[in-house]
Amino acid sequence: MCDLLLVTHNFMAKLTLASAQINTTVGDIDSNAKKIINFIKKTEKKKVDILTFPELTITGYPPEDLVHYDHFVNSNIKKLKEIARSVKNTTVIIGFVNKIKNRLYNSAAIIQNKKIKYIYNKIHLPNYGVFDEKRYFYSGDEIPILEINNVKIGISICEDIWEKDSPVSIQAKQGAQIIININSSPFEHDKHKKRINLIKKISKENNVYVFYTNQVGGQDELVFDGGSLLTNNIGEIISSSKRFDENLMIVTFNTENDSIKSKNQKENFLIKKIKLNNYENPNKETLNVAPNYSQIDSIYRALVLGTKDYIRKNNFSRVLVAISGGIDSALVAAIAANAIGPKNVMGVSLPSKYSSENSYNDAKVLCENLGMELIKIPINNIHSSFEESLEKLFNKSEPGLAEENIQSRIRGNIMMALANKFNFLLLATGNKSEMATGYGTLYGDMAGAFSCIKDVSKTMVYEICHHINRSNLSEVIPKNIMIKPPTAELKPNQLDSDSLPPYEQLDLIIKLYIEKKFSPDKIAKEFKKKFGSFNKKLIMENINLIDRNEYKRRQSPPGVKISNLALGKDRRLPISSGWKNL
Amino acid sequence: MCDLLLVTHNFMAKLTLASAQINTTVGDIDSNAKKIINFIKKTEKKKVDILTFPELTITGYPPEDLVHYDHFVNSNIKKLKEIARSVKNTTVIIGFVNKIKNRLYNSAAIIQNKKIKYIYNKIHLPNYGVFDEKRYFYSGDEIPILEINNVKIGISICEDIWEKDSPVSIQAKQGAQIIININSSPFEHDKHKKRINLIKKISKENNVYVFYTNQVGGQDELVFDGGSLLTNNIGEIISSSKRFDENLMIVTFNTENDSIKSKNQKENFLIKKIKLNNYENPNKETLNVAPNYSQIDSIYRALVLGTKDYIRKNNFSRVLVAISGGIDSALVAAIAANAIGPKNVMGVSLPSKYSSENSYNDAKVLCENLGMELIKIPINNIHSSFEESLEKLFNKSEPGLAEENIQSRIRGNIMMALANKFNFLLLATGNKSEMATGYGTLYGDMAGAFSCIKDVSKTMVYEICHHINRSNLSEVIPKNIMIKPPTAELKPNQLDSDSLPPYEQLDLIIKLYIEKKFSPDKIAKEFKKKFGSFNKKLIMENINLIDRNEYKRRQSPPGVKISNLALGKDRRLPISSGWKNL
Repeated sequence: MCDLLLVTHNFMAKLTLASAQINTTVGDIDSNAKKIINFIKKTEKKKVDILTFPELTITGYPPEDLVHYDHFVNSNIKKLKEIARSVKNTTVIIGFVNKIKNRLYNSAAIIQNKKIKYIYNKIHLPNYGVFDEKRYFYSGDEIPILEINNVKIGISICEDIWEKDSPVSIQAKQGAQIIININSSPFEHDKHKKRINLIKKISKENNVYVFYTNQVGGQDELVFDGGSLLTNNIGEIISSSKRFDENLMIVTFNTENDSIKSKNQKENFLIKKIKLNNYENPNKETLNVAPNYSQIDSIYRALVLGTKDYIRKNNFSRVLVAISGGIDSALVAAIAANAIGPKNVMGVSLPSKYSSENSYNDAKVLCENLGMELIKIPINNIHSSFEESLEKLFNKSEPGLAEENIQSRIRGNIMMALANKFNFLLLATGNKSEMATGYGTLYGDMAGAFSCIKDVSKTMVYEICHHINRSNLSEVIPKNIMIKPPTAELKPNQLDSDSLPPYEQLDLIIKLYIEKKFSPDKIAKEFKKKFGSFNKKLIMENINLIDRNEYKRRQSPPGVKISNLALGKDRRLPISSGWKNL
Repeated sequence: MCDLLLVTHNFMAKLTLASAQINTTVGDIDSNAKKIINFIKKTEKKKVDILTFPELTITGYPPEDLVHYDHFVNSNIKKLKEIARSVKNTTVIIGFVNKIKNRLYNSAAIIQNKKIKYIYNKIHLPNYGVFDEKRYFYSGDEIPILEINNVKIGISICEDIWEKDSPVSIQAKQGAQIIININSSPFEHDKHKKRINLIKKISKENNVYVFYTNQVGGQDELVFDGGSLLTNNIGEIISSSKRFDENLMIVTFNTENDSIKSKNQKENFLIKKIKLNNYENPNKETLNVAPNYSQIDSIYRALVLGTKDYIRKNNFSRVLVAISGGIDSALVAAIAANAIGPKNVMGVSLPSKYSSENSYNDAKVLCENLGMELIKIPINNIHSSFEESLEKLFNKSEPGLAEENIQSRIRGNIMMALANKFNFLLLATGNKSEMATGYGTLYGDMAGAFSCIKDVSKTMVYEICHHINRSNLSEVIPKNIMIKPPTAELKPNQLDSDSLPPYEQLDLIIKLYIEKKFSPDKIAKEFKKKFGSFNKKLIMENINLIDRNEYKRRQSPPGVKISNLALGKDRRLPISSGWKNL
């Protein structure tokens, strides 16, 4: 089909748009509203034409089953009306949960002069990965185009622009020159790049400016990295907002694209035009360029922000970390110290008879470098009392996993006792390689409220530690910790490599099996490519380890998702399973 | 609109239908296929016209993210073809995961004479409660009607008949006399009744027989209770299959309803007619009546089956239970002994200095009654060694929660050590009232692989124990255990009632807040109705307890879902939440 296009020459107007990249708290409708109203006041002074907030601003995102509570949804609607009363000349776009005839929608209210002028209901609802939006919401069926200062603007929410049959192309055909897209799009190590490429492509293909607003902050296992931005109609980023921080980006620009209208275009959706009041815009043209972070830097920032917000949003101010002298607990301590300040982080060394003196010394140097306290509680006596109590039952059998786990669980018990006694939040220190293979003790080193590096593979743990040292221009993480071979120190001379393949190989299996969902055969082919050969038995053994340890992961604390597929809400596998990967 | 109906007088034929209410294992494609083929062979001998298996028979239900693995889906399709080759004259209907152009469907294959004659793709996909089907599957768009022995039969899968715009009415209008519905519908205490009422209603309204097949067995937190049945066209159950067990129900009957066809009925779906070969039916009319279980009996059976299958499907044969002398561990021990035989259940008494001698005696009598072993491991010495190690740090502060939890976690450690050493599966003993309010110690008494009574409120724990004693005509659960006031025995003279309201009140709050999702105001009204008055502070305190303890539940083992809303996959709430129930 060949569309006939009509180019409508508009009066080219200057617009000032503001993107409030804010950090809300799920469920905290009152505080979120206060923050929203503050930002509205700020922008009103600056003669902003349109101010946008992230997806589901009032409830926070994702509110999950809270929206099944009627009084929760009512409270968010009541609060929207209250916020509306604070809106003057600036057009404000706010995300909230809409209710029409007892059906819920993920919606954006368009407010001007104390009035809700229009409500857009999200059309494309993600129901994959960490998203369950079809569990909660119905899809909208109407596509809005605002007109303000003679500029036509399309409104959309998050997934709406990711789908092939996006409302954007319809809005563009209907004359929209700018597309506003409000988001709660969580961080993954390569997602910011994907987003940028997508938005550039959409801008170019549809000859539209895209004004993209994302939320920022941690929410359980998710971190929202912000990265709000503006592209022009030839797909160039002309303004961007600093990531991993609250930010109000205000841009003033002249749209340079014409409003293009197709003739006789038929659509499956209703098109709704909303004309808003115009106000004189006294602002000078201004844009903004945010710093660019390397991938490893952005991962580290995501871990710090996710950890910080988990602590803060659960009303804790201090955390505990068991410092073993190994690299995992070193990274967790560094993240925690960065997140809430080293004075609020307490390290605990819990040596057993199998711990080397070096381990304690390394722990000590680490804590000194980070500026945090380290206390020492030897577990030898407690360990002996367990051995005595179980001696008769264990009946001189060969010590094995049971005996190793006892030590780890003594440590878990002590850490939890300190946490309970002094109101610390306990951070667990397991990495993704351990969580995947079950190389960690349930109720032992896996104990804690938050497991910061749960989605960080062992090889990436090293990379991040190198990055920390490089960016601090000093060995914050002591060299000794960086170079010694990994060990759980639960029996004499134990090394991770006794039980696990080299981490380079293990992490490839984990990436291919968990994140890429490859079959063993396909994994073998990748091994061949990368290492020149493959050991099918080794691959199968580790896949089986991953499968068998689902029960442990199900009882593990949440941690920051940084990969394309973490071990959380985005991976839902049965515990009882007879699947043999044939 | 008034439909013009044409009544088509069919040759009234006799049919033999068989419902294979089987217990599959999720992921175990090979074993599931073997079982399917066995049942096919059995029915072929009995001249069955149509044999139906449950929804997603080959993969087991729910396969969850396993279907995201391409080699898993391919393996299930390959196996379907292999099974098809074993099919002779009997028409066999099998659930499997279908793949068309890389889109997955929840489907039913219709097989006769080694050939797959048709594949029906489920239309209505549940995406609420424990169900995530829109995460995995696309909806079908075609509605099939089989013709065999001159009888017209509509095929549907589970949710298809629960929805208002169900394919059943379309099939009936197209002449179907029988509706076959294959299911994987999990148990809830009142669901069997709901199902029966629904099926009766559908039969009557559409003048059709409904042949309903459900799977049986436990899968993680779900239990499928079977309850396969046949209704006639006036909504009477004329045959039923024993619940909570594998069962092959074979029925032979003459359809007494006419095939009714509407004229010029327009539908949104394609209608597909499939004519199958007819074979002479030598069978005599036979129907079957299954025993009827009371609600409390069915709950108990669900707990036993769910526990049994969790143990078995995770390849364990023996379990451990910490026997405190209280009623919760008594019930768990009784369930376990019933599930896998008392010789495979080991009880462990772990007395501390706060445990009364009575507790041990009660535990002993219980284990004798059940016929299981009880061992005793006092924790006093270990407890003292913890106290000594922490003495300086705790600095003579008032003993509180931290000190109580240490004891519970010592017990958790010992139980896990025994489980690890001797390959037991550890059963946790917390009930729903405790899980809801967080009245249990994470990594302590909450430790274990499976938490059988996690969805059973304390008041229901008593009811089930009474039921057990009644049906055994003896005090299997000793009277002492039934009548003493509940206590955690973690400090001197401690009683549950020191920290919690009477269980009758607490359980009402839990039911209204968790299961019914009522607001505090609405709960207060219900209290007024039931108790004549309400204490708003008490209600709010307990709601806050429920909200605050989300982090504990997230790390708790799975347990059998028996209520309309358990504390598992069907309840997805944020841990970090600022919601204040205003």
